Amino acid sequence: MTVTTETLVDKGKAAKAAGRILARASSETKNALLLKTADLLIDRQETIISANQQDYAEAQPHLSDSMLDRLMLNSQRIEGMARDVRNVASLPDPVGEVFDMRTLPNGLMAGRKRVPLGVVGSIYESRPNVTIDISALCLKSGNACILRGGKEAIQTNSILAGIVRDSLVQVDLPADCMQFIDDPDRALANGLLKMKEYIDLFVPRGGPDLIRFVAQEAAMPVVAGGVGVCHTYVDGTADLEKAVDIAFNAKVQRPTVCNALDSLLVHSSTAPDYLPRIAREWAKAGVEIHGDGRTMSILGAEPDLNLLPAQEEDWGREFLSLTAAVKVVDSLDEALEHIQTYGSGHSEAIVSEDYSATSRFLDEVDAAAVYVNASTRFTDGSALGLGAEVGISTQKFHARGPLGLREMTSYKWIITGNGQVRS
Amino acid sequence: MTVTTETLVDKGKAAKAAGRILARASSETKNALLLKTADLLIDRQETIISANQQDYAEAQPHLSDSMLDRLMLNSQRIEGMARDVRNVASLPDPVGEVFDMRTLPNGLMAGRKRVPLGVVGSIYESRPNVTIDISALCLKSGNACILRGGKEAIQTNSILAGIVRDSLVQVDLPADCMQFIDDPDRALANGLLKMKEYIDLFVPRGGPDLIRFVAQEAAMPVVAGGVGVCHTYVDGTADLEKAVDIAFNAKVQRPTVCNALDSLLVHSSTAPDYLPRIAREWAKAGVEIHGDGRTMSILGAEPDLNLLPAQEEDWGREFLSLTAAVKVVDSLDEALEHIQTYGSGHSEAIVSEDYSATSRFLDEVDAAAVYVNASTRFTDGSALGLGAEVGISTQKFHARGPLGLREMTSYKWIITGNGQVRS
Repeated sequence: MTVTTETLVDKGKAAKAAGRILARASSETKNALLLKTADLLIDRQETIISANQQDYAEAQPHLSDSMLDRLMLNSQRIEGMARDVRNVASLPDPVGEVFDMRTLPNGLMAGRKRVPLGVVGSIYESRPNVTIDISALCLKSGNACILRGGKEAIQTNSILAGIVRDSLVQVDLPADCMQFIDDPDRALANGLLKMKEYIDLFVPRGGPDLIRFVAQEAAMPVVAGGVGVCHTYVDGTADLEKAVDIAFNAKVQRPTVCNALDSLLVHSSTAPDYLPRIAREWAKAGVEIHGDGRTMSILGAEPDLNLLPAQEEDWGREFLSLTAAVKVVDSLDEALEHIQTYGSGHSEAIVSEDYSATSRFLDEVDAAAVYVNASTRFTDGSALGLGAEVGISTQKFHARGPLGLREMTSYKWIITGNGQVRS
Repeated sequence: MTVTTETLVDKGKAAKAAGRILARASSETKNALLLKTADLLIDRQETIISANQQDYAEAQPHLSDSMLDRLMLNSQRIEGMARDVRNVASLPDPVGEVFDMRTLPNGLMAGRKRVPLGVVGSIYESRPNVTIDISALCLKSGNACILRGGKEAIQTNSILAGIVRDSLVQVDLPADCMQFIDDPDRALANGLLKMKEYIDLFVPRGGPDLIRFVAQEAAMPVVAGGVGVCHTYVDGTADLEKAVDIAFNAKVQRPTVCNALDSLLVHSSTAPDYLPRIAREWAKAGVEIHGDGRTMSILGAEPDLNLLPAQEEDWGREFLSLTAAVKVVDSLDEALEHIQTYGSGHSEAIVSEDYSATSRFLDEVDAAAVYVNASTRFTDGSALGLGAEVGISTQKFHARGPLGLREMTSYKWIITGNGQVRS
């Protein structure tokens, strides 16, 4: 099937119409759909793997090893995808929840009822599991979706999209609740982003370039996020053992993700004790330190560190690797000022035993997630109790932080009376 | 003071910086600010009226009577403005509310805390009370604001803005929490709409052209609304007395507003009884009816009606005047289909005594406010219990329906632990 800008509009119309039916589907039907998708993933894993091997073979000459690893599917990964879909099925359905309902003085009952957003669009890069992941979250929250994956994974994604569409049909929902653009033509991405009339929300998933492109070009609302320049501030009163554990975990446990530590700020009163301890632990894990002047003096004599002087561009940089910028500050105010200047509003942490310092940090830091005495690595939907996430928002509009099922909904006011009129 | 695109950016920077201080102000301080503004409005009413008379005199040659009426301020209207500001002061402060707080299995406490959006921009038309109204709602919800009123009201608005800025200073908050653009140059409106870095949300207030202009040009999120093509559907089982009261009120009580009735849909089984009754009541109030073929047959013999055959463009038209389109339909399905095709997603009502019909209407109509047995005129912040409103949103993203104080906020995740790290 070849997709043109014209058929793109047809897909949009079909998704909108199908979405209206999906919006009224019961939780039972939507859960049956997801369990069916999980079953079909397992049943059809040979077909998936064979398509994936073709994609892999074609991509091999021009993708890096890490990109190839993200593209590759095997039985174990397919089982993981099925497990994730079953997990989404087990989550509570936000649609239909009624809140703020009350009786007004004139006897009208007025409240708000959660409804799906409508149609969600997504453009994403090489990992094919996103096709299943976003579909499951959109469909469970009653939203139709139109997806466009990376061209490297197009054969794998087509099979995966077919599985979702077949599952929809098997539970008597329209297949068009899930639309997949199986044509790598870049003009189609631009076309999708202009389809304001048919797509209610756009969620890009990928690197900063993709996110910037979508945020700039999209005519509809976009949930932008993904870029995380995350600080951990170790206060003068910090429990140094906790501070070592937290900064180690935040930097090392998974350095390639957006909630990993980028900059470590350390109060000058504690820096001489603390910095050598964290630096030694980091060194064992291969972390490279870009230190400011005072950090360099404190750590200069330590053996076996990977230590370089920080450049101005190291502050506010998302490393996505085993590198950390380290700066010594003289006060909480200086730390707050630094975070306000260089942070990206993603995840910020303080390690401190001082009540006033932690209170001020929680109050004054303007970010999606603000931590006291914990690793910033917890900023995601599953770690924060939402069960799963479509993405992480660093904007303040609509939803901030992980976007779970509830964040994929809107509401409508429902007002019932017995003849009330306005006077 | 002359404003250039350069000083516009300075205003944006100043608003952002002042907003950070305002975001942490206590409810007491913000309420004191609003009460001060109310007092100064009364104290300075002669100055306001004198500026308003200059605006009025300059506008008189080229504005319609209704526009001039909207521009005009007198003691009574100024007292009304002061009363509205005091009302906003009396509303609960949404900022700081913590919700969804729970202890996760690993012992982390995680929840969400309401925070202001940051800086709100607004462009609005001739009514100068909007200057006070939007300022009060923004400041109470902890948001700085940058406002630009119509050029007809520029002298009045400058005085009003000065009152708000003086009130800010009197409660030790930065005057720059409220910025007013006192230069009518249209290039500045365009400049404002591009200041994504300094303005977090834009709220246009005015006619459809202004709203469309802002929605198209703004680089930041916009809460768009205002256009209301509102239907009332009188079902076959309707209590006709209620149906007459409701349709009369929805059309006549204030025809120039967005939640007034535009189209009346009547089930064919009840149309012969109902239509003459509502038509006679409407006729007394001067309502012009644009009827479909069946409406014309039923009403054709009635004396003294203002009755014209409906044209295709009457369906989906926002009349904003004493005109109503009327159509006879054969089923609830036909009514739902008509509303889906022609409605603007604002306010829709059913009048019916049938449980299944009202349930389906509430479930299936996709609009900001859906009514059973009540007038659509209730769609506003004060009527629905929010106390006041910045505007009415017909979009699904962020907030839908009236935007009260809570809808002018975002949240941040706050997570407190005792050394938790991710495994």
